[in-house]
Amino acid sequence: MLQELFSPSVQHVLDLVGIFVFAISGALLAVRKNFDVFGMAVLAEVTALGGGLFRDLIIGAVPPAAFSDLGYFVTPLLATVLVFFLHPQVERIQLGVNVFDAAGLGLFAVTGTAKAYDYGLGLTASATLGLATAVGGGVLRDVLANEVPSLLRWDRDLYAVPAIVGAAMVALCIRFDVLNPYTSGLAAVTAFGLRLAALRFHWRAPRAWHRSSVSVEAPDQAG
Amino acid sequence: MLQELFSPSVQHVLDLVGIFVFAISGALLAVRKNFDVFGMAVLAEVTALGGGLFRDLIIGAVPPAAFSDLGYFVTPLLATVLVFFLHPQVERIQLGVNVFDAAGLGLFAVTGTAKAYDYGLGLTASATLGLATAVGGGVLRDVLANEVPSLLRWDRDLYAVPAIVGAAMVALCIRFDVLNPYTSGLAAVTAFGLRLAALRFHWRAPRAWHRSSVSVEAPDQAG
Amino acid sequence: MLQELFSPSVQHVLDLVGIFVFAISGALLAVRKNFDVFGMAVLAEVTALGGGLFRDLIIGAVPPAAFSDLGYFVTPLLATVLVFFLHPQVERIQLGVNVFDAAGLGLFAVTGTAKAYDYGLGLTASATLGLATAVGGGVLRDVLANEVPSLLRWDRDLYAVPAIVGAAMVALCIRFDVLNPYTSGLAAVTAFGLRLAALRFHWRAPRAWHRSSVSVEAPDQAG
Repeated sequence: MLQELFSPSVQHVLDLVGIFVFAISGALLAVRKNFDVFGMAVLAEVTALGGGLFRDLIIGAVPPAAFSDLGYFVTPLLATVLVFFLHPQVERIQLGVNVFDAAGLGLFAVTGTAKAYDYGLGLTASATLGLATAVGGGVLRDVLANEVPSLLRWDRDLYAVPAIVGAAMVALCIRFDVLNPYTSGLAAVTAFGLRLAALRFHWRAPRAWHRSSVSVEAPDQAG
Repeated sequence: MLQELFSPSVQHVLDLVGIFVFAISGALLAVRKNFDVFGMAVLAEVTALGGGLFRDLIIGAVPPAAFSDLGYFVTPLLATVLVFFLHPQVERIQLGVNVFDAAGLGLFAVTGTAKAYDYGLGLTASATLGLATAVGGGVLRDVLANEVPSLLRWDRDLYAVPAIVGAAMVALCIRFDVLNPYTSGLAAVTAFGLRLAALRFHWRAPRAWHRSSVSVEAPDQAG
Repeated sequence: MLQELFSPSVQHVLDLVGIFVFAISGALLAVRKNFDVFGMAVLAEVTALGGGLFRDLIIGAVPPAAFSDLGYFVTPLLATVLVFFLHPQVERIQLGVNVFDAAGLGLFAVTGTAKAYDYGLGLTASATLGLATAVGGGVLRDVLANEVPSLLRWDRDLYAVPAIVGAAMVALCIRFDVLNPYTSGLAAVTAFGLRLAALRFHWRAPRAWHRSSVSVEAPDQAG
């Protein structure tokens, strides 16, 4: 079974780490938007679990993992408590948050693709769902906070591309029957590294032609 | 079967009352946002049925009740007609709307929790879905109207907490095998009363530490 | 089987045409919002496939057609490439885009209603899902772009009504057992024609009473 890329306990710990760091980003946005503690918890849960929830609904895996594993539900609450008491410190270690978030991005892209394929989807659809697993929670977070999704904005460092690369590597490994813990780990690490490089060197995607000199939105807008 | 907490006909009438008052709040927001009559109907339907729709998708109860019971679909249209012709009067009786809305909140938290448990979810997941049933429609309403969800804002009286208390009471009753019409009625009434008290005494939830003196959003903003 | 209203290949081509023109409208909004090329692709996919995805989740047709037919996934990417290189020209032929969009609206309202009925929903619920299939993608597009959904705004020419008429005609044809390629084609053409007439003569829906002279939102706002 593809889904068990890693030993179950290792997989579970990696999942919880990804959920935790995504939840931190949700809770931090809630603080910036001046939401109360329940708004923080809601945004933490949605950011951490939204992508996987979408994937599970699409592939028909109901009830979704988010509602059948208590650890998945409790972890974002712990992130909320942490941010509630320590948010100035957490903001100051934004670098660390970005590194963990990049790790979550790579991991979710890989496990999301593998799980979708396990449920019978084609390779392209599986890779697409891997991407959706990795970025879906952040999109929901921004929609609920009434902001333009960070994923769509040109003035943000590349976020989708690393996830696309990781998901596509997994799909190719499945295609050529070489998916195992090493190749899937390599895919996750590649996505992770690309995201870090995008952050370090401010890689950005192009906009439509003849559009480069126009800035409709102020670049300093929160998001 | 847990779901039949009340006799079927009583349950159905209570459901329709909850749907009706939630639909009123959706149609009123549409009027405030200057939407046309179809926008009013869409917002009324989404507010009234969105929470239950989300719950039914998560637990795999397809097609959802919203699409299999004609009364669920027609009731929000009646609310739309009422608001279309009488909205100044309806706004004036905001107090009455708030009371009915609080009743819907308590009822949906209780029935949502029981239905989720009926479909095999754990107690924590069931209570979470009870909360989602109660507040989900309002969140969708605000997202479609392009507003920050009222649920998340610190400058709104407590809304999630009464629903959480009601849903948790149902989960505890299930845990100790004492769920019956009386205990579930008590849970609904408790949530109802807490919401009314929150409105009366302007109970609010805290924001993250060191944040209390900062107001990012103007408190008079619509929502 | 109702769903095969037209021969499978004709149906598929019509579906792809509808998906293509809806995707164009999504990519164009992304250009206007200054999104990068990935934002354009996301908005194109969501606009083109969102309505059908919602319908398939509600009726329990998982994985949805959007994830099981590669052509459905690739077509919005082609639309993205076209808009990326030629968007000023595409904007200039807005009339043509509107005509194709109206065709997609009529087609999706008809096929969405028939597919929902095929999956066992009642006539009213089927027509509602036909409407949701036709307009759902556009609503998701506007929500992701952080705009008030065009569907809900009073200062937009009628969009929902033509789809409602087309979906209702299909439901009536099913009710009286006269649904065939001719009657369903007539329903699609009627919706198409009504939408074109609404565009030509600026038909609009009324707002709530005593509201006509108030304009909360500036009419020239993008959307």
